Amino acid sequence: MAKAADVHFAVDPWKIIENGFDPAYARVSESVFSLANESMGVRGCSDEGGAVDSLRGSYVNGVYDLEDIGRSYRGIIDHSHFMIPAAEWLMTDLVLDGERLDLGRVRFRDFRRELDLRAGTLRRSFVWQTAAGKELRVTFLRALDMVCRERALQRVELEPLNFSGEAEYTATLSFDTVHEGRKACYWQAVRVQAEGECGLVQARTLRSGQEMFAGAVLQSPAPVTAEGEGQTVRLKTTVPLRRGETARVDRRVVLRYDGASGEKLWAEGTAALEACAAVPAEELLSAQRRYWEGLWRTSDITIEAAPAADAQAVAAEQQGVRYCIFQLTQTYNGGSLRHNIGAKGLTGEAYNGHAFWDTESCCLPFFLFTNPAAARSLLLFRFHTLPMAMERAKMLDCEGACYPIATMNGEEACPLWQHASLQLQPSTAVAYGIWHYVHLTGDRAFLWDCGAEMLLQIARFLASRAGRDGVTGKYGFFGVMGPDEFHMMVNNNAYTNYMGKRTLESAAEALALMAREQPAACAALRERTGLGDAEIARWREIAENMALPQDASGLIEQHDGYFNLPHTDIQSIPVSDFPLYDHWSYDRIYRTDMIKQPDVLMMLYLYNSSFPEAVKRVNYEFYQPRTIHESSLSPAIHSILAAELGKMDEAVDFFGFATRLDLDNYNRNTREGLHITSIAMAWANIVYGFGGLRSDGDGLSFTPRLPERWQRLCFSIVYRGRIIRVRLAPEETGFSLAEGEPLTVRVYGQPCTLTAAETRIPAR
Amino acid sequence: MAKAADVHFAVDPWKIIENGFDPAYARVSESVFSLANESMGVRGCSDEGGAVDSLRGSYVNGVYDLEDIGRSYRGIIDHSHFMIPAAEWLMTDLVLDGERLDLGRVRFRDFRRELDLRAGTLRRSFVWQTAAGKELRVTFLRALDMVCRERALQRVELEPLNFSGEAEYTATLSFDTVHEGRKACYWQAVRVQAEGECGLVQARTLRSGQEMFAGAVLQSPAPVTAEGEGQTVRLKTTVPLRRGETARVDRRVVLRYDGASGEKLWAEGTAALEACAAVPAEELLSAQRRYWEGLWRTSDITIEAAPAADAQAVAAEQQGVRYCIFQLTQTYNGGSLRHNIGAKGLTGEAYNGHAFWDTESCCLPFFLFTNPAAARSLLLFRFHTLPMAMERAKMLDCEGACYPIATMNGEEACPLWQHASLQLQPSTAVAYGIWHYVHLTGDRAFLWDCGAEMLLQIARFLASRAGRDGVTGKYGFFGVMGPDEFHMMVNNNAYTNYMGKRTLESAAEALALMAREQPAACAALRERTGLGDAEIARWREIAENMALPQDASGLIEQHDGYFNLPHTDIQSIPVSDFPLYDHWSYDRIYRTDMIKQPDVLMMLYLYNSSFPEAVKRVNYEFYQPRTIHESSLSPAIHSILAAELGKMDEAVDFFGFATRLDLDNYNRNTREGLHITSIAMAWANIVYGFGGLRSDGDGLSFTPRLPERWQRLCFSIVYRGRIIRVRLAPEETGFSLAEGEPLTVRVYGQPCTLTAAETRIPAR
Repeated sequence: MAKAADVHFAVDPWKIIENGFDPAYARVSESVFSLANESMGVRGCSDEGGAVDSLRGSYVNGVYDLEDIGRSYRGIIDHSHFMIPAAEWLMTDLVLDGERLDLGRVRFRDFRRELDLRAGTLRRSFVWQTAAGKELRVTFLRALDMVCRERALQRVELEPLNFSGEAEYTATLSFDTVHEGRKACYWQAVRVQAEGECGLVQARTLRSGQEMFAGAVLQSPAPVTAEGEGQTVRLKTTVPLRRGETARVDRRVVLRYDGASGEKLWAEGTAALEACAAVPAEELLSAQRRYWEGLWRTSDITIEAAPAADAQAVAAEQQGVRYCIFQLTQTYNGGSLRHNIGAKGLTGEAYNGHAFWDTESCCLPFFLFTNPAAARSLLLFRFHTLPMAMERAKMLDCEGACYPIATMNGEEACPLWQHASLQLQPSTAVAYGIWHYVHLTGDRAFLWDCGAEMLLQIARFLASRAGRDGVTGKYGFFGVMGPDEFHMMVNNNAYTNYMGKRTLESAAEALALMAREQPAACAALRERTGLGDAEIARWREIAENMALPQDASGLIEQHDGYFNLPHTDIQSIPVSDFPLYDHWSYDRIYRTDMIKQPDVLMMLYLYNSSFPEAVKRVNYEFYQPRTIHESSLSPAIHSILAAELGKMDEAVDFFGFATRLDLDNYNRNTREGLHITSIAMAWANIVYGFGGLRSDGDGLSFTPRLPERWQRLCFSIVYRGRIIRVRLAPEETGFSLAEGEPLTVRVYGQPCTLTAAETRIPAR
Repeated sequence: MAKAADVHFAVDPWKIIENGFDPAYARVSESVFSLANESMGVRGCSDEGGAVDSLRGSYVNGVYDLEDIGRSYRGIIDHSHFMIPAAEWLMTDLVLDGERLDLGRVRFRDFRRELDLRAGTLRRSFVWQTAAGKELRVTFLRALDMVCRERALQRVELEPLNFSGEAEYTATLSFDTVHEGRKACYWQAVRVQAEGECGLVQARTLRSGQEMFAGAVLQSPAPVTAEGEGQTVRLKTTVPLRRGETARVDRRVVLRYDGASGEKLWAEGTAALEACAAVPAEELLSAQRRYWEGLWRTSDITIEAAPAADAQAVAAEQQGVRYCIFQLTQTYNGGSLRHNIGAKGLTGEAYNGHAFWDTESCCLPFFLFTNPAAARSLLLFRFHTLPMAMERAKMLDCEGACYPIATMNGEEACPLWQHASLQLQPSTAVAYGIWHYVHLTGDRAFLWDCGAEMLLQIARFLASRAGRDGVTGKYGFFGVMGPDEFHMMVNNNAYTNYMGKRTLESAAEALALMAREQPAACAALRERTGLGDAEIARWREIAENMALPQDASGLIEQHDGYFNLPHTDIQSIPVSDFPLYDHWSYDRIYRTDMIKQPDVLMMLYLYNSSFPEAVKRVNYEFYQPRTIHESSLSPAIHSILAAELGKMDEAVDFFGFATRLDLDNYNRNTREGLHITSIAMAWANIVYGFGGLRSDGDGLSFTPRLPERWQRLCFSIVYRGRIIRVRLAPEETGFSLAEGEPLTVRVYGQPCTLTAAETRIPAR
């Protein structure tokens, strides 16, 4: 199972750099150079298009269309939704002496592409050598405004090196965008206007009826004419070129989708475009830079190589971890309650734009410790979609709320019933997220207003879904699929049972707390939801009597009968068999003791402080050799636990490609888009794994363990109005507060009060 | 779970009679009055069509088309096939004074429909009362030739009761037939000819490319004209009507589908039609009667009521059992090796014409004991489709041959992967069928030529599919669905393990026998299939070490962890919840100890002689109250075992609707077609249950147990050149040989030699 780096980009601490253009690698680069601002995203596709393999993805968060799946059995969804490409706003035709710019056909030199993690811009530059021998330096710059998120900028600079003349320039804005997988356009224009330097198109999706406004203004040194056709507008200009001088054309873009439609949307869209065009582009770019500087101040992680280490490799890790933070922040930062985090973010069609339970289980800690407001927004998404989760529970003949395994809008969208109906982890993950958020932030208001109701409905769901063992009388969940998706329909999955138990307890405790602190609100909630004492007592009874068999050593059986499964030596599986879903018959993966990703270990990670080290050790040592890591989220969990258990070589091995999964295309599928939720686990791997942070016990604790290859690891976390800076060195760890009041944490198990001055704790 | 009779038809020992026409019941009657001759089938639809709810199904065995399912995972089929309606050959337009005959619109009286089980004909008669006050007695007769199976006859008799005049008569033959469920026609005509009294159409299916010839000749007292249009021909005549006289119009039909196409098929089809038309219709009808008389001589079952019993109810059972034998014989009698037995036979679109493992597990005994040549043909179907079963095993990453759960042509056609990939019972049922056939008939030639190779490839499949318990080291099948489809993906399903064990043993024994008796052929087979001694030794090792846990009482756990499942009191499920697949969420049915149909009990039925009575009793008593009988095959198995265990009341209760499942529309879905394979279990219920026949031990044995309500039960079975007649009476059972040499069987465990003279054994 050796995964190998596919090294393509130059290493730089703050940039992702591609020197030279490789058509065969174009789609991977396109993914890597994706830009987003949470509201919209665009792959790093060529502005000029042409005969190059490309997925010209431009996406707007929350925009999808519907498809029928066909009615089969009760509880199985009969329709689904999927993210569709939104307006294409980058396409730029450049013609010089009748020759059209197309890197698949023309001659060019000095190609360089740079994603600047501090500027928040993507720049692409090369010298176009026409058939007639003219040389034109072309530079494309783009930015998606992180401050005013309906805005984007495309800047094109043309510098004739050996001639003067003019270039014909056409900027297209179009809703004729085709979903690559489904080979269809899902838009119908409702209004098109082409006038002066402006092109405006308002369009509606075919079935979901979502309406979106797209507008562009072309700011050219020469006159601009506009023409519309179908659901496309073209802005044309003839750019005068003078040898040695740089001509610049800016396209100012607004993509607006906020639930409005018709005249209202049109009026607001055109006003927004006017406002956008009135602000100098330089202001957007400098505000963009300020945004990212602020982000790096609180969220940067720095890594330095140990003297004996491969400095270049560590520099690559440094670049990688910053890239992860950049991409995750681009994808989500809490600006909207309508969005969640798609597995591929806004970088491709794979996974249909759907968010999974990765959000709460993998991404939430990053936000909890860098941007707690964003963590709250993620949880509010679940609160706003509670009615759909309640509807879903009904479909499954259960009570309460069952959260979807895959969704953009809150409805279950996974067409594979075995995942949609059998995986309870989205629901328990939401409950865990609420608990973890309130536990860390102390945001009781959230608990009273939203959290308690969600916990109540999730607990109600779990109680209605639980069964009672016919022999032992213990409670458990029957017919489930745990996190390990290689065992489809099992009974008493330990993860599901334990998470269910904790969820039932959390719900009961939250309601007890609310009854004491907010009795009126609590009574109203109970009245509204028909929650009686007997029901809470039943939650407690189920939680107390939940099956969780452990042997004398503390080894937890993943599910009933797991130990009896035929053993597979996962080392004997040839590399060519991966990914197994493509090479093994579907049912074959389900009948051995090979597991896809942490299951028992996932629970030991999430509720880490609830289990003694000996239990973690025996379970890690048992399950680690049985885990094939067919989920990109998997190795980080193993790395974190390995570090905790002092298995530093394993911890470093599992960390391996965490920071550069996509930059080095480890899974060979980066061409489809970025692994956004894995990116979050790379952060957790460093902070929880090597920083040794634990946040599920009383207060915060740290057990720092610096890998030998690193001389220094620094990271910051935000916690209750403080910024805690942590500096790991081989001999010691330094803790200081960049902001906020002194705080007592535990370091290596001992209380330690942090202040503005660095507290140094010797390494162990 | 009370199933109630929906009494509609008059009781008669040899006929199914419908007096009066109920439009609301039209589709149920259509199913019940289905005719077939193994090669073709037609529902009892009105010849004249009209405004009446109807599924005008005319089917030809083996004719299907293909559909794409979409590629998903390896081992899951990406296309399937389904039976399509073939040529419509009964439609008859009758117009009198401008009024068109249509029972949905015209006035009529004296409606009577009769299916004659001895004549093999369906007759429908009524008096049409026109708006003008004319009365015309109209009688439709139809027959599907059981002797020359490409032939059919439609006879229409018109008797004007109070007038003379003429009727316009149009007989249509058409391939414009629409699949009701899929709302599409799957035919394209390749040649159409309308000439003289003849209409001929040759057509090809859209995707499977099957070609079929349909021809009709109209024999009318008046001239006939023919016209063709698209893929339809119409034969028209104006029938002179003289008061008090009966005018007769015969339509002679040939439907030919035999793999030929193009000119060859056309030439053979037209010649066949000529030959058919040359034989007087009366000869067809008398040959038909002779066929059925012969059948009843060997296969009839007679039942007489006890003095204290409800005579009418027993008469209904008598009618029912004959109807079952009639329908099963119509559907299949071994005339072709290309066909199997669809779950609905040739009576409807439900189940897509697919045959399931019902063939070997439920239908085969009927043929083994009434028509062993047909049993052989059924097994030859499996032999001819062995290459597809081997292909299927490869798709599943296994070796050998995996037989499909649903098929018409040998390819797996079930789009539900959980059934297609996890149910091994089709393969073990084929092996059981081979073993049972050879065991009963002694047909070694079949074993050498076909059986051994199938057994070998099935054993090879099972050995490659088996796994080894990680704790006990025992072999078993992991990730399977046993006969009880309410537990989807379980380990060590007892039925599957035991059937697998017996299959491996049968294969090894068959090859050992072949090595002794046919060494050259055996060596050739082993050479051709690459079968070494080590592989056979492995089969034996797996068989010897197959897991089959039983507790001290002999109770067998249905699968690992079954006893731990939450208990459901099936009596507490409201009747309105049935069928559960329609009313419960799909996953909900999988997580309790409720079982759909016999699983452990199925194995105790099939290998009845291998288990002591105490084991059968403890398992019956445990599983019976947990079985919900959501399969129509289920109650008969329970009835047979209940009879064996002396639980006669239960045996009679479970027998309940066996003989009249469709005649009384017990499942309320007869409108979709007949439950052909359940019909076979009704036969087994009587012969195995009350006759107490056992055929899986050494020789035959009987333990007759006559229900109290019956005064007399007589049945015959064919066995190795003999016809054994069995007569059960309250005091005694009589055995005699209608044909063949004396034979020793066991009755109530004691040897008993049967001869032509009746041997009488006192009842116990």
